[in-house]
Amino acid sequence: MTKQDESPRPEARLPKGLQDTAAPEIRATESMLATIKCVFERYGFEPLDTPAIEYTDALGKFLPDQDRPNEGVFSFQDEDEQWLSLRYDLTAPLARYVAENFQNLPKPFRRYQVGPVWRNEKPGPGRFRQFMQFDADTVGAPSVAADAELCMLAADTLETLGIPRGDYVVKVNNRKVLDGLLESAGLSVGDTHTRLAVLRSIDKYDRLGDEGVRALLGKGRKDESGDFTKGAGLQEKQIDLICGFLFAKGLRRFEQEGAYSNINTIVGLSAALGSSSIAEEAISELEGLLNLVESAGYGPEQIQFDASVVRGLEYYTGPVFEAELTPSIVDERGQTIRLGSVVSGGRYDGLVERFTGEKVPATGISVGVSRLLFGLQLLGKFKGDAVLGPVVVLVFDKDRMADYQKMVQALRNANIRAELYLGSSGMKAQMKYADRRGSPCVVIQGGDEKERGEVQIKDLVLGAGVTPVDDREEYLKHQAEAQFPAPEADLVAAVKKVLARHGA
Amino acid sequence: MTKQDESPRPEARLPKGLQDTAAPEIRATESMLATIKCVFERYGFEPLDTPAIEYTDALGKFLPDQDRPNEGVFSFQDEDEQWLSLRYDLTAPLARYVAENFQNLPKPFRRYQVGPVWRNEKPGPGRFRQFMQFDADTVGAPSVAADAELCMLAADTLETLGIPRGDYVVKVNNRKVLDGLLESAGLSVGDTHTRLAVLRSIDKYDRLGDEGVRALLGKGRKDESGDFTKGAGLQEKQIDLICGFLFAKGLRRFEQEGAYSNINTIVGLSAALGSSSIAEEAISELEGLLNLVESAGYGPEQIQFDASVVRGLEYYTGPVFEAELTPSIVDERGQTIRLGSVVSGGRYDGLVERFTGEKVPATGISVGVSRLLFGLQLLGKFKGDAVLGPVVVLVFDKDRMADYQKMVQALRNANIRAELYLGSSGMKAQMKYADRRGSPCVVIQGGDEKERGEVQIKDLVLGAGVTPVDDREEYLKHQAEAQFPAPEADLVAAVKKVLARHGA
Repeated sequence: MTKQDESPRPEARLPKGLQDTAAPEIRATESMLATIKCVFERYGFEPLDTPAIEYTDALGKFLPDQDRPNEGVFSFQDEDEQWLSLRYDLTAPLARYVAENFQNLPKPFRRYQVGPVWRNEKPGPGRFRQFMQFDADTVGAPSVAADAELCMLAADTLETLGIPRGDYVVKVNNRKVLDGLLESAGLSVGDTHTRLAVLRSIDKYDRLGDEGVRALLGKGRKDESGDFTKGAGLQEKQIDLICGFLFAKGLRRFEQEGAYSNINTIVGLSAALGSSSIAEEAISELEGLLNLVESAGYGPEQIQFDASVVRGLEYYTGPVFEAELTPSIVDERGQTIRLGSVVSGGRYDGLVERFTGEKVPATGISVGVSRLLFGLQLLGKFKGDAVLGPVVVLVFDKDRMADYQKMVQALRNANIRAELYLGSSGMKAQMKYADRRGSPCVVIQGGDEKERGEVQIKDLVLGAGVTPVDDREEYLKHQAEAQFPAPEADLVAAVKKVLARHGA
Repeated sequence: MTKQDESPRPEARLPKGLQDTAAPEIRATESMLATIKCVFERYGFEPLDTPAIEYTDALGKFLPDQDRPNEGVFSFQDEDEQWLSLRYDLTAPLARYVAENFQNLPKPFRRYQVGPVWRNEKPGPGRFRQFMQFDADTVGAPSVAADAELCMLAADTLETLGIPRGDYVVKVNNRKVLDGLLESAGLSVGDTHTRLAVLRSIDKYDRLGDEGVRALLGKGRKDESGDFTKGAGLQEKQIDLICGFLFAKGLRRFEQEGAYSNINTIVGLSAALGSSSIAEEAISELEGLLNLVESAGYGPEQIQFDASVVRGLEYYTGPVFEAELTPSIVDERGQTIRLGSVVSGGRYDGLVERFTGEKVPATGISVGVSRLLFGLQLLGKFKGDAVLGPVVVLVFDKDRMADYQKMVQALRNANIRAELYLGSSGMKAQMKYADRRGSPCVVIQGGDEKERGEVQIKDLVLGAGVTPVDDREEYLKHQAEAQFPAPEADLVAAVKKVLARHGA
């Protein structure tokens, strides 16, 4: 290839914030996704797939990081100069899909979708520019019953994945609570810029704490790297009111003592918010939602009100929810990990209206796939399926590839995972290869075996175990089990014997 | 949202060449992918995932349509001005992965990967800008045994999907056959530009026929739309030699009469090609491959030599293969469909070397997922799993949502797919909704039933059937089965009775 010889060799590397996924992680993810799918299907959701690329204007600009170039989204121009973007979530494409196919959909429309999304953001530890989401949304359902159901779905999903009650919590709030609060602080809800800045500041409470949020609500905050984020510009008094309300004792579960009741909390909330119309709406929606989940059998240890939950996405209009794992999670180095929310969502009644001009209520949740898997693995609640490697037929004599291939094919036809050694190395390297592949056994046929119409089966699992040397009889028995001859015609049966030993 | 109110409403539409996928298609695809995965695993391949985005230089430019802007690939610049691209296949990312992780991989390295790829090409009927591929590749295996195995894997995959022997064929050739032919036509194999133009012309034989290919090999060709494609610039004599060889009787299966043997064909090929060193290499590799598949039990009706198979991708260096379905496929309007190849691949020994400078032999196949599914569906060999819709609990009285929600939850807890009607319409529209959802039955509880502690179960499948009106007794029996009361406490059992009627 002359052309390539002239140009310098490219470096084999991935762009920052992107990663490859190896077999064990893929198997674990698939097993988890299958369970989630099962639960979502039980709730009546149907699968939908949309492409990775959409018109930029169809996706809209709802991502938190608006100050960065490209506004958090990977974009490029089509031949006809129209701007295209990679989807940054699965909700914006759903809104486009619903607006485009409104007449032909059953209403309400429940769909789930799983797939990668892309964010053109600064990557960091555990923060990637491509990651997977698993969403369930109900479109065309105005009542809080739809929101309540998504909270229950989140709870059921986590429990079905093996997380016991008490080890997770679905936290519920309503954007209107925040709006009522802004109103009582003398701020206009119509001032979308300030409102957005306020809710994004509050959304960072878990990471930045009281002080950090106060700085962001005020003049601004300088982070560890020295980068300065401009604040929302609120006055000290307004900040006191908002923080005093959101992060006060009695409104957050982990500061509770004794019995907890959602309804008691709501009563307190109602008194604190006052009687503006927006506050009344917030209280009534929250009460309705919590009543529904309670009567369906979900207690506050599963689904509970939390005033500090606001979510960073602009498009939410009513109830917002997020689920987190509550046990303190410790990594391999013994450090406590702040995992963040593993499921999140809310109501977004304006997203389809953007296209059609007509109100189409909608609400949904999104599972952060890799974060949830990571949490499950750290909690020891979820192990990927350990898969035995394939049986490897070794190549003793390169001129007899056809014979060895025939053996491999016989094993495969018996539904045994098997492969022919396809490299060019000698027997020792071939044995090493089989070890690396996690093979339960190898099959060998040299000249002597060929003459006798036999094969040698070497059990690599037994072979790797400690050989008893004290007792000669035991030793010989072990050796005989770890490697034994079999008539070539009985190859499949002999290999099956070894597989049975190791639970396959 | 003031900001959006000011800007005009975006149109809800997808960019050309992209498509949404609805539930039945998704279920069918998933079922097919699960089968393919099973066969690939049986051959010892392990899953790998790579991200959608790669550095443009890491992917290289190997796509056929080099004359189009952006060269067939979606590209955009990262913050640091480096060019990124969406992957156009799964082979180029594998080469990057292998080069990057060479030391840590078992060698040979067998991996499979399934996922979408993107081509910035002119879309057409059945030709999309995002489509799914399912690849299996063996890296680090220099021998034709690896190529032979991939041909067997293709055959096994198609048979496991329900395509009987004789209804598919895996066609095999070798790029070196073409090179030998070019040499004997007095052309230099080192002239990559002409070589590429020639093989891409030949690759279009199925679509353009003898005359079209001759035009492309010569001065060029004007297509139906009037677009002119420049030709490879060969002389009439050279074109005669190449076409005479590739498309001659006796070298293509469908023009054969009587018994067919791969080896007889090779003998003929050998005589035709002459004795250049490249021709000898080609013959020896082809013979080796075909001997191996034959001794593993695959006859020429499954895997056979076909001189006209060249594949359009530049990076192939040796054996090339493609599998197609042979029955003539007719669509709903009775028109014969030219499906093209459903599996294709070949050896690409230079792709990892691009990065490392060291030879790393590699070979692979790629399943065209949607084309194969389309073919299977048209052949009637494959039906997606028909899934019963969820049981719908209707909302008779909006104030009693909590009661209805409880019923839904009871059904779900018994692992029954169930949903609460979440819209705001009346009973008639609710029944219509349940019909559209394919519900087996609905659950109704009005005031009277509530008083009696009962629910009404309405079997929608029975209800949709013809009611016998001749026989009063039969009529009443049918009516009683189609709708019946049950104690609220027996809700789950009553619904299960209906589900059992309909095979769920």
